[in-house]
Parts: sequence; structure tokens; C-alpha cells
Amino acid sequence: MGPLLYFGVVLSETSMVTGRSNSASGGRRGGRRSPRGRARERKVTTAPAYVKRQIPFYEFLGEEGLVKLEDQAEWLIQEVGLEFRDDPKALDIWKKAGADVNGTRVRLDRGMARELCRSAPSEFSQVARNPARNVHIGGTSQVFAPVYGPPFVRDLEGGRRYGSYADFENLVKIVQQLPSLHHSGLVIAEPCDLPVSKRHLDMVYAHMKYGDKPHLGAITEKSRAQDSVDMARILHGANFMEDNCVIMGNVNTNSPLLVDRVVTEAAQVYCGANQGLIVVPFILGGAMGPVTTAASIAQALAEAMMVGAFTQLVRPGAPFILGNFLSSMSLRTGAPTFGMPESVISNLVIGQLARRLGVPLRCGGSLTASKLPDAQAAFESADSMLSTALGGANFILHAAGWLEGGLCTGFEKLVIDADRLGAYQVMLSGLPMDDNALARDAYAEVEPAGHFLGCAHTMANYETAYYEALLSDSNNVEQWEEEGSKDTARRAYEHWNQLLKDYQAPPLDQAKDEELQAYVTKRKEQIPDAWY
Amino acid sequence: MGPLLYFGVVLSETSMVTGRSNSASGGRRGGRRSPRGRARERKVTTAPAYVKRQIPFYEFLGEEGLVKLEDQAEWLIQEVGLEFRDDPKALDIWKKAGADVNGTRVRLDRGMARELCRSAPSEFSQVARNPARNVHIGGTSQVFAPVYGPPFVRDLEGGRRYGSYADFENLVKIVQQLPSLHHSGLVIAEPCDLPVSKRHLDMVYAHMKYGDKPHLGAITEKSRAQDSVDMARILHGANFMEDNCVIMGNVNTNSPLLVDRVVTEAAQVYCGANQGLIVVPFILGGAMGPVTTAASIAQALAEAMMVGAFTQLVRPGAPFILGNFLSSMSLRTGAPTFGMPESVISNLVIGQLARRLGVPLRCGGSLTASKLPDAQAAFESADSMLSTALGGANFILHAAGWLEGGLCTGFEKLVIDADRLGAYQVMLSGLPMDDNALARDAYAEVEPAGHFLGCAHTMANYETAYYEALLSDSNNVEQWEEEGSKDTARRAYEHWNQLLKDYQAPPLDQAKDEELQAYVTKRKEQIPDAWY
Repeated sequence: MGPLLYFGVVLSETSMVTGRSNSASGGRRGGRRSPRGRARERKVTTAPAYVKRQIPFYEFLGEEGLVKLEDQAEWLIQEVGLEFRDDPKALDIWKKAGADVNGTRVRLDRGMARELCRSAPSEFSQVARNPARNVHIGGTSQVFAPVYGPPFVRDLEGGRRYGSYADFENLVKIVQQLPSLHHSGLVIAEPCDLPVSKRHLDMVYAHMKYGDKPHLGAITEKSRAQDSVDMARILHGANFMEDNCVIMGNVNTNSPLLVDRVVTEAAQVYCGANQGLIVVPFILGGAMGPVTTAASIAQALAEAMMVGAFTQLVRPGAPFILGNFLSSMSLRTGAPTFGMPESVISNLVIGQLARRLGVPLRCGGSLTASKLPDAQAAFESADSMLSTALGGANFILHAAGWLEGGLCTGFEKLVIDADRLGAYQVMLSGLPMDDNALARDAYAEVEPAGHFLGCAHTMANYETAYYEALLSDSNNVEQWEEEGSKDTARRAYEHWNQLLKDYQAPPLDQAKDEELQAYVTKRKEQIPDAWY
Repeated sequence: MGPLLYFGVVLSETSMVTGRSNSASGGRRGGRRSPRGRARERKVTTAPAYVKRQIPFYEFLGEEGLVKLEDQAEWLIQEVGLEFRDDPKALDIWKKAGADVNGTRVRLDRGMARELCRSAPSEFSQVARNPARNVHIGGTSQVFAPVYGPPFVRDLEGGRRYGSYADFENLVKIVQQLPSLHHSGLVIAEPCDLPVSKRHLDMVYAHMKYGDKPHLGAITEKSRAQDSVDMARILHGANFMEDNCVIMGNVNTNSPLLVDRVVTEAAQVYCGANQGLIVVPFILGGAMGPVTTAASIAQALAEAMMVGAFTQLVRPGAPFILGNFLSSMSLRTGAPTFGMPESVISNLVIGQLARRLGVPLRCGGSLTASKLPDAQAAFESADSMLSTALGGANFILHAAGWLEGGLCTGFEKLVIDADRLGAYQVMLSGLPMDDNALARDAYAEVEPAGHFLGCAHTMANYETAYYEALLSDSNNVEQWEEEGSKDTARRAYEHWNQLLKDYQAPPLDQAKDEELQAYVTKRKEQIPDAWY
């Protein structure tokens, strides 16, 4: 066997006995014309505003199983019912719609929730202040957004600490520059140095000022949701928002089967203004849902479908996104676990159920219980994210930056995850099958036992043929050692610091900026400081 | 909103403002009966001998695309042809079969290769010396095997170095104890301190002595293949092997479109003895195949199908496994890249093509270009491995331990990958949908807004509900810090060292052992030392 050498690597797995490693230095290359001969700079891909999926959905569960899960969800809604607490107005809305309301327990006849969800748009656009960043949500579109909610942050040099507003603003500026994050979310990390009662104003303003991607609004209290919508009206115009979604809220049900007023008030504020609401049952199996995965999926469907029905009673046609967040637990400690096969399966199945219901789906994302951006973090995040992407989720929150079961935002994790999101985008774009892809001409130029390194077909295609992962080091070990033997976390640290150095604020109309600032100032004067 | 506390974690992604972290200490738990109350030891799962897949195949490419790729493969075989070099006997076999042989170029009429492959079994068993370890290859079975071929090894304390026989024997002993590796492969790392001309004897003996899982034999030279088969005859009996596959060879074509005598001789030795041959086109796109993925997949199909046809001319009915190894390259350096979306797609598509051809498929595995078992390694390996598993590959080589594009075996990487393989096994086993899984009884016990932590359904199911990843740390950050803030690599280092301490050799018939040792001794006397 005479193995072909490729930069000195023996190109056969069964004859790797010499250990010669690949080298990008030109010594062995001779005078062949070759893509390798060109010095290349790292380039930032110009990414599309969102993913337009070109590959089939993976139909994990058969018809019989899907019907069983849907039947179970209907059974839960009709027989067990959901609690709607602390919001008498929500109960009035249910009563007017003909629901069976007993105290705070709400039950619907079989099929009613599903029927009500029909008026929710199966697809819609969220408009960004930069129209090139508008995202389409639903159908075969997929939108990636960063982690949401952690009170802590961690970076390689600064260690783990409570998130501050300075961290938050830096994270917004980094997300703005990551091409595979299509949406900037909201609470990339909690700015814990700001009063809880006011920080939503600073967060929403920062997304509007330092980014031009679509983002979410606050939901933790009704007036905070209203502030978010009011600020969006300044930025986008009140009339425009009557017909266009420019901001959304993301709420969790209190599983099992409890919906509190955070959810129903957010529905009234956001959907009442014809803006979007994402409703996510947040189920750790064995705690907030049964320990068996099928039952927890059915419960998630019941809870989200019920709130979806409620949004359509508030305003028929308002955008509603069905969410799923299903996790498992460690038998050793009872701690929540992430990226495990049960949640992988749930991502695939809930995708099927959402398509049958005809509403967009939110899943998350690059999830892990790891404290560091290490191998555990990457394995768990990859399995979680790939299954979410394959499952067809239309809006993927927590797609980058999540550590510690969601308690901590990792600066390095954020840019490493985002780098992988580019790979998922390429996978979702499918396999070209045209004449150029089949390359018959290349075989006229390259004989058997030859090589394609410099052939015309390679030269014509190599710049676009393969995904270029910025943070993957594919150099040989000698070169990698010469460059400091940096692991992925170290390279990621350098990358996000460079992004902050390179950051340029996207232009914002000065009058609107001043109006936004005045709104924030006025509201901060009105609201007392509070830390809850 | 009154979020449920779970070990003190605020269980809502939108209200994670307190940063209280989960704790396994009992302080908050009170007297509830709960799975968390039981102290648990880490337990090694008793894993099945191989994966019996229960989930659908993912049909990535539509009929039209598959037909195009098959047509292209037939075109390559008929019009371009393959080179069969350095083995006149192989050319004689082709001539007798009616092939168009011109010098060393062999062309077949359209459909002939596919037709010849029909006599290869679509499914077969490889028998291990421990019958409980027999694996089934083909259909819906999936078998995971470790990395094959690296000349280097790396571990956390010992660093990177040439592999030695001591390393090799340790790796065999570790693989023997990893429940999700069903097969022990062969060259887990090259024992570079042994002469190339003799090391196959030590490697095959070590697999037979220190493990009882099925394994491969040598292929690098005809007499080494023959030694492997002869040693298998000592272990399993010559008569038994006439009807049963107990050993296989794994060979690479020399892409593009070149088959050398390593391959044809291995086919004559292994298939001639009714043993299995795995044939893998090893294509780095842009070098050994066109830079467009569709063309490289078609070329891989043509090459493997042609050698598959050859194996059936050698002995109709001999086990043949169609292999695929398709990689991409970095635009920055030209270096091979792994785990990228193009190879993810190729794993899914080749699975469809192999099923249409009716032969088992080999893919690999947990691949990466990273030098360390870090986030890059895990992301690339996860995407590669998950797509391989979803694609339905029946034999997955390199499923654990691969670093540096296959130049280095990582001790930590081996056990981390193997831990994840357990998760893929669970995913492949599907979603139970029986009454217990739907858990309607649990809702009689647990009211809305309650919790399932101690309910009867949870107690009855929690021990088997979720995959338990040994090397994932899901503890809270304080506990993790108390235990030394170990990253995944450090925990993996401790794990494989513990496995070596715990190792016990599986019993081997003493007479057979002596006969094997005598064979090795005799052959070492006959063969001169050589280092190539």
C-alpha cells in the first residue's frame, strides 16, 4: 500500500504507523497550484438573518404514539385541568369563553384548546430595527438566540461571579457580532448590580441601542412587560406594531399544571398589543412532571396548548410559540441533568407535536450541567442542540452561552456554542445535488490514484465547499504547540475579547435614542428601588 | 410567580435571579420520601452486547437524490473504472468474472457490482470468545468499537508520546471494561516499541487474552492477515469458522478509485476463510475525492461497492461491510477537519445508500481534529457520532478515543466518549409509550401545582428512567468546588486509572492460551524484525 501523503499525514487509518504529522509549511508542497498555497485570513461569514431549513423533519415517533400523547394532553386538560392563580381577570376570560372554571381550576372540553390555537399564526415575522435582521418564525425557519436568565457569569480570567450591568452590556455587544445568533434574546445574564425593579429598562434599552437584532421584552411583572412594549413603540411606532410583531415575551408555566399571573398578565400585555408570547413548560422530570418521558412530553403539550388557547382568547391571531423544556435528573444526586438522551428524544417528539398543532415551536438549546466550557459542556450541548435543530424548533433559546444548568452564562461558552451553530446552519441547508456538486468533469481531469488538490473543480469550489469553524484548531500538533498549546476555552477567550475591541454600535436614529433614554429616566424616577 | 424550589434551585428560567444553587445536603428536604434521600453509589450499567435500534432511520435525502448518487457510482464503475494494482491474482478474478480489464483498470457493466453484492449477507453475527459478547451486524443492530490506528497516545499526566505495547495493553484492558464499547477493534494505539513485522501478533494475542469482546485482525500485509485468521482458528476452531464469522479485517481503498493489494489480499485471506471484510474509502474531500460532498459520497459508494463485489467473487456469502469515511478541510490551512456538517450529512446519506444496497454499514465515530479532550473535541465528536448513530451505521469504528485527526489515542478521550455512547444507546432504544410511561395514575396522586418527587410512580421508575452519565458532573458549583473543581478530563483520568486498578482478566482456557502463545513465539522466530 502506498498511502497518499497530505501535508505529510499518512492518509489511511490502517497505516498510520509513521506518526508524521501535517504541516502547513510549504516544504513538501512543491509547485502545484493548490488552495493550500494561498495565505488566508480568518473571515467572518456573512450569515443569513435566520435558517431556512432545506432538510426533512425527522419523524421520530409514529402516528400511534403521537395520537397517544395528544390524547393524554386532552385528558389532562379535560379531566385534571390546570390551575390559573392570582389573576381573576384570566378566570373571567376563561368563563366568557365557556370553560369549566371551578375556583381556580380550569378545564376545557376535549378539542377546545386545540381549536382555539388555530387562530394563532403558524408562521410570522419578528421585525428588527435593522430590516436585514428580521426573522421569520415557524414553518421551515429556525432562529437561534442566546442563553436567557443566569444570575452568574464566568470567564476564563475573571472567574465566576454575579453578573453585572457591565457584563450584560458586553454580552449584548458580543451577541450582536456573532453571525449565527439571529436574535439577541433578553437576559443574556442578570445585571445583578441593578435593582430588580428597574433593570428591565436598562436591559431592553441596551438591546435596542447596542444591537440591531430582534430581541425579547421583560415578563417578570406586568408593568415591566408594559415598559418593554412601550419602549418598542418608541422604536418601531405604535401603528406599525398593530400589524407587526417587534417584541415577544418568554414565560414559563409553573409545572405541573399551574399557570400564574406572570404568564396570564404577560399574555394580556404582549398578545393584547399583537406581540408574541413564547410559553414554555419548564419540566424537570420526576419533579415538575412524571419521571417517564412520554408523560412529561404530554404534560408539556397540555400546559403550552392551554396557555396558547388563552393567548388567542386575549387577541385572536396574536403570535404564540409553543415551548418545550424537558430535563432529566441524576440518580446519584437528584440534580437536574442536561443533554441526556431523554431530552434529546423529547426535542424530536415535541417538534412533531407542534407541527401537528400548527404553531411555531421553541426549544433550547446548548444545555449542560457543567461548570466549565469543557468536554462535558460540549458533549451535552451538542446533543441537545443538534436534536433541537433536527427536531425543527423554530425559535431556539439558550442556543449559546449556557453553563451550570442555566445558573451561569459563560463568555467562552457563548462564542464556542455560536461557532457550532454555524455548522448546524450548514447541515440544515441540505446537500446540493446539481451537476457542479456531482463533479463529473473533475474525473476527466483527475485519473484514478491521482488527487483533486489543484484540479479545476476544487479551485472553483473550495472557498464555499466546507464550513469554516473559527474556534476549531485543525493544525498539526507541532504548529498548535508553537502557537501556545491553547485549548478551546483559551482561544474562545481571545476571540470574545477581540470582538469587544472590534465592536461598533449599529446606527440608531438620534431622536429615537433620546426618546428611549427619556423614557428610561422617567420610569426610573417613578419606580422605587427593589431587589425582588 | 412562586417558583418551585428543587434543591434550592429556582426552577424557572425567567426568574433565576437569586442564584441559590442546588445542594444535595438534606437540610431543606424534610421528611418526604424521595429518591434524593437515598445515598447512591456509582454503578456500572450492565449493557447489552450491542444496540438493538428501536427508532426510525432518518431519511435525509429524497428518492431523486439517492438515485442520482447511485447513478453516479455506476457511471464511475462503468466509465472511469477502478485501478487494481500490485495483485495480478485480483485481476485474474475480475477477468474470470467477465469484467472489462485493461491493464490494471477494471470496469464493470452498469449494475454488475450491485448484483454481485447481493450474495453478501445483509446481517450476520460476529462471534466472540464469550458468547454473551457476540455482536449482530446489519439491519437495525449497531455495534460500537474504539479508535483504530493512532501512532501516538496522550494522557493527562503522561502527555503525548509514541504509543508503546504497555499503552496498548492498558487500552485493551480499559476497553474490556467500558460497557458501551461492544467490540474492541484492533489497533487502539500502535505499539510503536515493537517491530512492525511482529506487533500484529502481540496485538491480536492481547485482544484474545485480556478481553472477551469480538475484535479485528491485522491487514497491513497478507501474512499478517493470515496470522490473525490462524490465531482465531486456535481460539474458535477451524470447523466453527467455516460457518461463523469470528474475526474481520478493516481496509481502506486508496481513493480516488485505487485498490491496492493490501485490500485484495485481505479479501482473499478473510473472505476466503468466510470471515468478514470492512471496506472503507477514506476520503478527505478536495484531496482524495471532489471537494463537493455529493460527489465524494458517490465515489465512496463506487469504491466500496466495487470491493464488495470483489469479496463475493472470492467467496460468495462472505460477510462484507460497506464503509464510509468522508472528511472536510480547513480553508485556512488545508488541514483535514472532522465533525463538520458536510461529514454529518454524509453519514446520514450513506446510511440510506447502504440500506438500498442491502449490506451492513461501517461509519466512524467520535472524530475530531483537536489535540486535547476539550470542548472542540467534544463538539466535533458529538456531532460526528450522533449523526453516525442516527444514520444507522451498523459498525462504528473510532466510536471512542480519537484525537488529532486519528494520529493520537487519548486515554481520557476514550472513557469520555464511551460514557456518551451510553446516551446514544438509550436514544436509539426509543420512547416507551405504555401505560406506565403515560403515568395517568401519578396525576391522581399529584395535584396541579404539586410535585412528583416522592410519588409512587416516581419511586417505581426513577432508577431506570434516566441515563446516568458517569463522567458528567451535575452537582452545584459549591459541591463541585469542594471536590476539587475538576474538569471532565481530570475526572476521566481518575476513571481510567481506577478501571486499570479494577481490571480482572476474563477466564481463558489454559490449553488454548498456551497454544496461542506457542503460535506467537514460533512466528516471531520465523519473522525478521522490520520497522515498516
